[in-house]
Amino acid sequence: MIKVIIVGTGNVSYHLQRAFSKTESIDVIQIFPGRSDFNSLFSSKNSDHRYFEDVDVIIICVSDDVIEAVSKHFEKIPKLIVHTSGSISVNAIRDGARSGVFYPLQTFSKKRQVDFKNIPICLEANESKDMELLKKMASSISDTVNEIDSKQRKAIHLAAVFANNFSNHLYQIGSEICEEGKVPFDLLKPLIAETAAKIETLNPIEAQTGPARRNDMETIKKHLVQLQNIKHKELYSTLTESIQNTYGEKL
Amino acid sequence: MIKVIIVGTGNVSYHLQRAFSKTESIDVIQIFPGRSDFNSLFSSKNSDHRYFEDVDVIIICVSDDVIEAVSKHFEKIPKLIVHTSGSISVNAIRDGARSGVFYPLQTFSKKRQVDFKNIPICLEANESKDMELLKKMASSISDTVNEIDSKQRKAIHLAAVFANNFSNHLYQIGSEICEEGKVPFDLLKPLIAETAAKIETLNPIEAQTGPARRNDMETIKKHLVQLQNIKHKELYSTLTESIQNTYGEKL
Repeated sequence: MIKVIIVGTGNVSYHLQRAFSKTESIDVIQIFPGRSDFNSLFSSKNSDHRYFEDVDVIIICVSDDVIEAVSKHFEKIPKLIVHTSGSISVNAIRDGARSGVFYPLQTFSKKRQVDFKNIPICLEANESKDMELLKKMASSISDTVNEIDSKQRKAIHLAAVFANNFSNHLYQIGSEICEEGKVPFDLLKPLIAETAAKIETLNPIEAQTGPARRNDMETIKKHLVQLQNIKHKELYSTLTESIQNTYGEKL
Repeated sequence: MIKVIIVGTGNVSYHLQRAFSKTESIDVIQIFPGRSDFNSLFSSKNSDHRYFEDVDVIIICVSDDVIEAVSKHFEKIPKLIVHTSGSISVNAIRDGARSGVFYPLQTFSKKRQVDFKNIPICLEANESKDMELLKKMASSISDTVNEIDSKQRKAIHLAAVFANNFSNHLYQIGSEICEEGKVPFDLLKPLIAETAAKIETLNPIEAQTGPARRNDMETIKKHLVQLQNIKHKELYSTLTESIQNTYGEKL
């Protein structure tokens, strides 16, 4: 049994706990809120590490900006300590030994259940025995486990901001335009589903359609007149130019 | 049996033919390429309309910019004539009687099969008996049939450009960043699928996550440094500001 402490109570913590609880091999023995008063909690115990004797892994599951500060409280504990962030280096945990990263590449909301089996987990560890431990944990909840170094992880996190955060924002603009035009946003949902499903079988560069791709200036001009919101107009122009540049170069 | 002529041989034509061929009630009796020499093809027959005697609907399935020109060849035929475009007014067909729109709201590629049952079909007709005919046709292939006027259709088409064309472009930028960072784009696919699936149960405005949503300036700055491509940098800034404005206003 791999014994785990999770620090943090946000979305990632919540979904990891749920996923681990379904395995036979991982036992979450304690959860600390990220804002705990760690000094008074285990400062005396900390000194001889007995508090953590039975623990195999401490997962720091807090926001990026406090990973380093929270990790400091655990820096003397001779157990594997990992964070779950896409954009923070493994060295934020502590210098040197027994640090790692356990980064599930997915968007988590408490309101929505996810199936961890399909979530890629990107692993990093400074020591090979720790990598083995992380692989064992990751593969008990997911079918896609990858060794990814900090530089690669930063790239994929940035790519995810485009593919996930920014796409969702475009859905939201779509829903605003529907609302203004008095059409139900529900009509767009099958299109959104198909747009995402397409890239399972086509590269996004092949899957591209629309007026910018066709260089259909007539429609582009009409759309820019039609857009009321100046911010939406600006986004439309920037994205249209970006598509035209992409295919202008490649064609 | 509803007898149909389709004009045009692009993606929409291809998928409509396939969908109609599976019904018991619709018979596609002829397909004309959009660039046919219509004058010599049926100018003499055209005069007494015998060529079209058995036809119920002519579907003009050509690119937006030639709908009006192609429709002219059929303007004297006293049958229902519809186009399939999201952005073109019903009046592009001909002035007055027996014009309509049969707009399937989906992204079509010949390489990819689609299930018409889930595709919303937006209908418009100048005469109520024609609307009945279009409803009969649409509901024989789709479960979502909507009466939508030209103004609403323009709104939903514009919304679709954001939610479909522009999102796909962001996937493509994501894939470029993966390539540069030497990580497989496949790792992003479950995230893209979940981002789209989320809006089935959450409004996009609730589903928004990421550094811009959290106003996490530290990460935003790091991403802007990390981005090599000046065009990607520009898009990152514009989209980040747009998200910040959205939530700045609403919070």
